[in-house]
Amino acid sequence: MFTQYIENKKENILERLFDCLRIASISADSQYRETCIKQADWFVNLLEGWGYKAELWHATTANGLPAVYAQNKQIEGRPTILFYGHYDVQPVDPLALWDSAPFEPIIRNNCIFARGANDDKGQLFTFLEALHGLDNIDNPPNINIKIFLEGEEESGSPSLKGILEKHKNSLACDVVLVSDVDMWSPNQPAFTIMLKGKVAFEATLTGPLRDLHSGLYGGPVSNPAVILSRIIGKMYDDNNHVLIPGFYDNIKEIDAHIKKSWKPLNEHILKNMEDVGMTVAGGEHGYTALEQNWCRPTLEINGLTSGYQGEGGKTIIPSKASVKISCRLVEGQDPDKILQSFIEFFHAHCPKDIRVRFEGEAGARAFVVDHNDPFVQKAKIALNDVFKDDCLLVGCGASIPAAIDLKEITNAPIILGGWGQPSDAIHAPNENYSLDRFFKGIEGWGAILKAFEKKDTL
Amino acid sequence: MFTQYIENKKENILERLFDCLRIASISADSQYRETCIKQADWFVNLLEGWGYKAELWHATTANGLPAVYAQNKQIEGRPTILFYGHYDVQPVDPLALWDSAPFEPIIRNNCIFARGANDDKGQLFTFLEALHGLDNIDNPPNINIKIFLEGEEESGSPSLKGILEKHKNSLACDVVLVSDVDMWSPNQPAFTIMLKGKVAFEATLTGPLRDLHSGLYGGPVSNPAVILSRIIGKMYDDNNHVLIPGFYDNIKEIDAHIKKSWKPLNEHILKNMEDVGMTVAGGEHGYTALEQNWCRPTLEINGLTSGYQGEGGKTIIPSKASVKISCRLVEGQDPDKILQSFIEFFHAHCPKDIRVRFEGEAGARAFVVDHNDPFVQKAKIALNDVFKDDCLLVGCGASIPAAIDLKEITNAPIILGGWGQPSDAIHAPNENYSLDRFFKGIEGWGAILKAFEKKDTL
Repeated sequence: MFTQYIENKKENILERLFDCLRIASISADSQYRETCIKQADWFVNLLEGWGYKAELWHATTANGLPAVYAQNKQIEGRPTILFYGHYDVQPVDPLALWDSAPFEPIIRNNCIFARGANDDKGQLFTFLEALHGLDNIDNPPNINIKIFLEGEEESGSPSLKGILEKHKNSLACDVVLVSDVDMWSPNQPAFTIMLKGKVAFEATLTGPLRDLHSGLYGGPVSNPAVILSRIIGKMYDDNNHVLIPGFYDNIKEIDAHIKKSWKPLNEHILKNMEDVGMTVAGGEHGYTALEQNWCRPTLEINGLTSGYQGEGGKTIIPSKASVKISCRLVEGQDPDKILQSFIEFFHAHCPKDIRVRFEGEAGARAFVVDHNDPFVQKAKIALNDVFKDDCLLVGCGASIPAAIDLKEITNAPIILGGWGQPSDAIHAPNENYSLDRFFKGIEGWGAILKAFEKKDTL
Repeated sequence: MFTQYIENKKENILERLFDCLRIASISADSQYRETCIKQADWFVNLLEGWGYKAELWHATTANGLPAVYAQNKQIEGRPTILFYGHYDVQPVDPLALWDSAPFEPIIRNNCIFARGANDDKGQLFTFLEALHGLDNIDNPPNINIKIFLEGEEESGSPSLKGILEKHKNSLACDVVLVSDVDMWSPNQPAFTIMLKGKVAFEATLTGPLRDLHSGLYGGPVSNPAVILSRIIGKMYDDNNHVLIPGFYDNIKEIDAHIKKSWKPLNEHILKNMEDVGMTVAGGEHGYTALEQNWCRPTLEINGLTSGYQGEGGKTIIPSKASVKISCRLVEGQDPDKILQSFIEFFHAHCPKDIRVRFEGEAGARAFVVDHNDPFVQKAKIALNDVFKDDCLLVGCGASIPAAIDLKEITNAPIILGGWGQPSDAIHAPNENYSLDRFFKGIEGWGAILKAFEKKDTL
């Protein structure tokens, strides 16, 4: 019945999405500030029109963008779900590479092309239209619904924590749903049950007071670029294990059942690598490419700077050398302790004449969803009737800071879903979203919502 | 009389030097090609104006910069000296650290500040002004003078050999004078009887086709910045010995007499290091600071570049990482073999997915002058009347590849002099040259030229 309803209402649904996509809500560019606020108001109006109580939650930071909050009538005893999405989009440049105007949505090859067609307007619409559809066929889910749409996800979420803390009580819920990630394949949905934490810093080594002539001073003068490279060299053994003391402390092994279920997925990771010119799993020995990306912490250099960087040569001993390092962490690792261990490692390996300065960001712990959580299992099973292949529970090498913030505020399980594919070109020119996945996604969320109705059966 | 002449003509002399210093003859940067050629023409005009026969000698290499050649009337039976200097200068970055514009020479604290104030425009001017001064006081040296000014010394002299070979006959001489090195102290001149050879190259490692998201790809994708640092780390042992195979092959021990005469000079090297903020001999264990600088080969990183270098962090796996490396070599080492060994070392330590590209300069062997040569001894004695302390015969950690090429072409002894000091900050921001040493230097070359007049007394 729901499938039929969607089939009948496709035009109305797309009309609403296209209206939304026409609003250029680029949060990273302050020129679009008013447009972002217009977009937030647009969602308040939409959701009020659908019978929700909706409002703006203003940021407590200077120039922060408001979030949209909406809820249905909350009835005691029902399960309460909190939905998270974001109404802002990425900048559009390079504009010349778009085949159609980014804020004039158009259908080509059975896909919607527009900035935000996937990330995250298309994705969040699948959830909203599922709710609206169930209401319209007189089968509204017997659930307390809370909707929270952020306006700064694409610009580092500077206001998110403040807004969440201010409205902590309003956000109380039994489970959080997020519609912002990819399916495993066009016919196979997936929930992401692991996200990595992060520790990142810059270390700057200073030796001589100024760049020196390498002939006049070379030999006795310690070269900070040499020292830096040698310190980095000592961070790894020949098996690509990290040698920073305590780096692997308290790491929780992946559940054997989950690990086994991931074996066949390794090919997929290797295929992604091939697309960027890489052919071998070059990380820690003893792990597959998938395990290296999803299950093992990484230590990457993001940037190196020292001395002369122009054309040709310049025979100097540089005064300074710096490195930007970031580690993706897995469950159990403590970002603060690891940062401290890096600092000690540098100091221990610096000769007397080399001084070190650190600049660090606040770290984040890894994020893991209990794959046995009843909500996760129910949602997974609910999708079996909608998609050809069974829903997977997958890992991810990346971090979504919002997910961690939501978990801290709600202390509820989080279901990270969505209907994207890498070909959707999010953050890039010609962003698009397949009509098939869009409409299937509406069905998917509908099935999940109905599966959540009865709290007692969880 | 000559001293008085210089005193009277200081303003004219400085005016000429400043005109020269205003020309940004940076040979390493192809953007300055035309400016370098302008500088060469400027010297031809200057020397023609002084009554020399002057011309450009064009490079035989593609995009090579011309040399300047000039001579006085050559008279049979007189001794012939060949003077070498270079009219090109080092790049100026980091520009922000200069207290005044590098190509707007200015006098502060009794020093000339400009790129090239010492290296080598200021230094070569002391020789040219000595010649011009002796001519002007009707006391021209009874010597056949040949002047050769190179334009590519700071970019590895790619055209030098070709030019020298083409003009081998014109360059025939009894002794070569070079004005490009330091005095031992502001009151004590020195001739350098040993120069280091050099091998220099840039290695660029390429991994993925583009910079990658470190979360989505991190782990299995080899990070070229990490691989590069680890390769550099493997180049040294814990005693700071170089581990490149064959690096130390065929090194000749220093003459015991000379080595002993250098023992008291070590304090001086340590003092120079202190002036740039360095306090310990940080090179090869088992050698003094002086020995590390003069007698032992070095392996320095001159530049490192990879990934994100702006403010804050960016969690990428960089597509590329590159290093500029140069080694200073001692007598016996073969630059070609050593470069080859570096190339093999990189290839041996690069994982499958990382490609390496090398760009090398032509290397140079170390250079040693016979300290018993009569020209060397005569020049040394000539300076006793000009400076407070007697001239020393010293070593040097630097390279002047031109010296080797000149020796090969002329088969004549080479006197490496000059009036620099480490505080002159050559190759660095705020390069400068003391007015006192500049004018004393003119006197010094004058005394040497007069001492060389009579071939029979040599």
